Amino acid sequence: MQSENLALHTDKYQINMMYAHWINGTHLRKAVFEAYFRKLPFGNGFAVFAGLERIVKYISNLRFTEDDLSYLAKQEENYKPEFLELLRDFRFRGTMHSMQEGAVVFPNEPLIRIEGTILETQLVETALLNFMNFQTLIATKASRVKRVAENDVLLEFGTRRAQEADAAIWGARAAYISGFDATSNMLAGEIFGIPTKGTHAHSWVQIFDSELEAFEVYAKALPDQVSLLVDTFDTLQSGVPNAIKTAKKLEAMGKRLGSIRLDSGDLAYLSIKARKMLDDAGLPYVKIVASNDLDENTIFNLKSQGAKIDIWGVGTQLITAADQPALGGVYKLVEREKDGKMEPTIKISGNPEKVTSPGKKDVLRLINRDSGKATADYICFTHEQHARSGGKLRLFDPVHPYIKKSVTDYDTVSMLQLVFDEGKLVYDLPTLEEIREFHQQQLNLFWPEYLRKLNPEKYRINLSQEAWELKQKMIEDYMNLQEE
Amino acid sequence: MQSENLALHTDKYQINMMYAHWINGTHLRKAVFEAYFRKLPFGNGFAVFAGLERIVKYISNLRFTEDDLSYLAKQEENYKPEFLELLRDFRFRGTMHSMQEGAVVFPNEPLIRIEGTILETQLVETALLNFMNFQTLIATKASRVKRVAENDVLLEFGTRRAQEADAAIWGARAAYISGFDATSNMLAGEIFGIPTKGTHAHSWVQIFDSELEAFEVYAKALPDQVSLLVDTFDTLQSGVPNAIKTAKKLEAMGKRLGSIRLDSGDLAYLSIKARKMLDDAGLPYVKIVASNDLDENTIFNLKSQGAKIDIWGVGTQLITAADQPALGGVYKLVEREKDGKMEPTIKISGNPEKVTSPGKKDVLRLINRDSGKATADYICFTHEQHARSGGKLRLFDPVHPYIKKSVTDYDTVSMLQLVFDEGKLVYDLPTLEEIREFHQQQLNLFWPEYLRKLNPEKYRINLSQEAWELKQKMIEDYMNLQEE
Repeated sequence: MQSENLALHTDKYQINMMYAHWINGTHLRKAVFEAYFRKLPFGNGFAVFAGLERIVKYISNLRFTEDDLSYLAKQEENYKPEFLELLRDFRFRGTMHSMQEGAVVFPNEPLIRIEGTILETQLVETALLNFMNFQTLIATKASRVKRVAENDVLLEFGTRRAQEADAAIWGARAAYISGFDATSNMLAGEIFGIPTKGTHAHSWVQIFDSELEAFEVYAKALPDQVSLLVDTFDTLQSGVPNAIKTAKKLEAMGKRLGSIRLDSGDLAYLSIKARKMLDDAGLPYVKIVASNDLDENTIFNLKSQGAKIDIWGVGTQLITAADQPALGGVYKLVEREKDGKMEPTIKISGNPEKVTSPGKKDVLRLINRDSGKATADYICFTHEQHARSGGKLRLFDPVHPYIKKSVTDYDTVSMLQLVFDEGKLVYDLPTLEEIREFHQQQLNLFWPEYLRKLNPEKYRINLSQEAWELKQKMIEDYMNLQEE
Repeated sequence: MQSENLALHTDKYQINMMYAHWINGTHLRKAVFEAYFRKLPFGNGFAVFAGLERIVKYISNLRFTEDDLSYLAKQEENYKPEFLELLRDFRFRGTMHSMQEGAVVFPNEPLIRIEGTILETQLVETALLNFMNFQTLIATKASRVKRVAENDVLLEFGTRRAQEADAAIWGARAAYISGFDATSNMLAGEIFGIPTKGTHAHSWVQIFDSELEAFEVYAKALPDQVSLLVDTFDTLQSGVPNAIKTAKKLEAMGKRLGSIRLDSGDLAYLSIKARKMLDDAGLPYVKIVASNDLDENTIFNLKSQGAKIDIWGVGTQLITAADQPALGGVYKLVEREKDGKMEPTIKISGNPEKVTSPGKKDVLRLINRDSGKATADYICFTHEQHARSGGKLRLFDPVHPYIKKSVTDYDTVSMLQLVFDEGKLVYDLPTLEEIREFHQQQLNLFWPEYLRKLNPEKYRINLSQEAWELKQKMIEDYMNLQEE
């Protein structure tokens, strides 16, 4: 969980390729890889990038321990001892650019770019994708929930159904980046400083002889932070009336009941009835928390049915991204060293979406000066200056080039930040609060049409003319080669 | 990943309930909890229990560090310092019974039973469910894949799409329990001794000027373990012919090409064609590996289409259990201490499946002496002797009591093992190979009808007469109370 000793958290084929390059004498050749995803999850219009802090710590701590080396020495591949000696001294000395955590990002744009020797660029692929894929997935799912819940309070409650401990911890952090207000997971609270919240379980009530006794004991112990779960027996007949009695006792102590929690049944109906009971009892300040397999769709529907819910506890559906539990991020070679010079490389595929875009690329976000809103993301080579200097741009859809548009009068934001410069960490990791704030600023750059939950408008992601022409030329060269 | 310092890997409400019990002076009262799931995942007929080793290490290491205590001291609940002192000395001193890893298990039967003070039984709920739910889910998914693949080789290839590092590592272990042969994840190999396997990536080919050169360099470096990925350009026009050339060069060196890997396209068609090309070239020993978003359904279909695939690399769909990414395991109070004596407790719910079964229970598996096959699982109180001694049993369906059956001439296997006895670990954790072997023995106990992938026959899980009658009585008592 602490990103320590994860050198072997990689696929065996990475080690085998490193070894084969070493045998071949090509392991110190330079390579450039870019990580990106091809398709947005959940039918959303954007994704929220996350995972960078984890990746930075992983890369910073990346070395092979003696145990790792002993383990490698015993593999059936019979790696030569000199290779293991090389690994003993291994440090990541490459250069990495990355999107910032909380950035609003889109398909087919480089999210992370790594330059270095084949040895180091190949080794990090697996862990980097593992962290980026999961954390970006959960941050994106959480963002969908946040869009729907708007100003209601959102609690992350998923630990017991998360896919093991790391998923619970890093998932809680990803949810917080996208606007969740707190988590139930205390370790995530301790490690990341995320606020933590909790109510009580049904077992609390079962331990006592009556629900009222259970509520009163709980309220006495935690008079400033009481949330009472009201559905152990019967929500409206027993739970809410007992909560009201407890609230009155708290008032007599000069305290206020914080909230009641509904965890089963028809949450729309029960919350409306419970709200009325609380209000009629002079307790308009008592909030209503709801939980029970919620996601953005159930919350949206409950709100449209007039549910009186102030606080949403979101568990399984969020922490596992249940409707699409994997982001298919990939890591592709875009440049290789040949005869001492870097040259672009392409991967051809029978599936057109899987053909890679060759060359080392930047992502520029074009911001319209009038509206202050994002117009398009512009993917160009790192050496291209035209867009950076605000020159008139002709944008065109790479798949349907007749869809085109000229833009002038824009500001350019360079999305990829330098993180490691030849092995040296040069990026100050922002605090989690800064990341949340940055994410909010990112959202403010987009018209609501791009952000809506259902059928969002497609945001423009365009290749520069030069990048597009190189790709076409390399495809043609390949085709000609095939016909020879 | 190493189960260290996970005391705060828990929901805040556990800490709050522990605190409120302490304030109330009830924290040392005894309680009994049982963990189970209500519904089988994937429409499968059984689940494969996993997670115990992780849980044992978690509980063995369970203590609050100074950092944990400082963190708790700053919470808005204003826990009293004496409570934190109590936590400083906290150790798990309870008693735990558990299913063995690899056991074939069913809904509504206790998989883990924990007895101890309220303090300790409440604290461990969240992490225990987190580990049990995920690992059991993946072991069950892997078992489905194994049923379909039969004697083909199965490789776990999911790390880059796993839900963070723990999921990759523990998921690889769960898959191995259920019959997978190897994983690509080297850390899982190092920690658990799982065999590791790998081929190479498209980037390996892209780095070279030609596919043939890439293959030859790779084969030279790893002559005993070569698997060549043949779909970088064109599988049948380029990849397979180049692999055949490479295999011939290996033969000249006295070596044999291990396999080729197909990672895109129509795997049925391509594998049949590739098989023929390899055979025609006198290379019948070269195996064919397939990967690309495989699961039990795609493998089943490919096999039925005559695909010539020997080795299956299964990634995303397995490691995330994509079609149902959470097992809904719960942890419910079944007995509480009152006036110095233990008494059963029940949780009522408007949803009948959610009504708990009161009392401290064992799971007995009844094995027919003639067939050697399992007849039913029989859930009875720990004090009940009748079934244990082989007496005639009347089994009946708890939901539909008219479905009944008498059994005699059976042997009884007690499924829950004593793991912690008043805090002391008394269970020898089996090796992973022993767990795999145990799982295979477990499968052999069941008729194939219960194990099939689609529409399996429902295995009998019956409550004892005594346990059923207590449950009915407690429900009636509750109803009568409601009507007063």
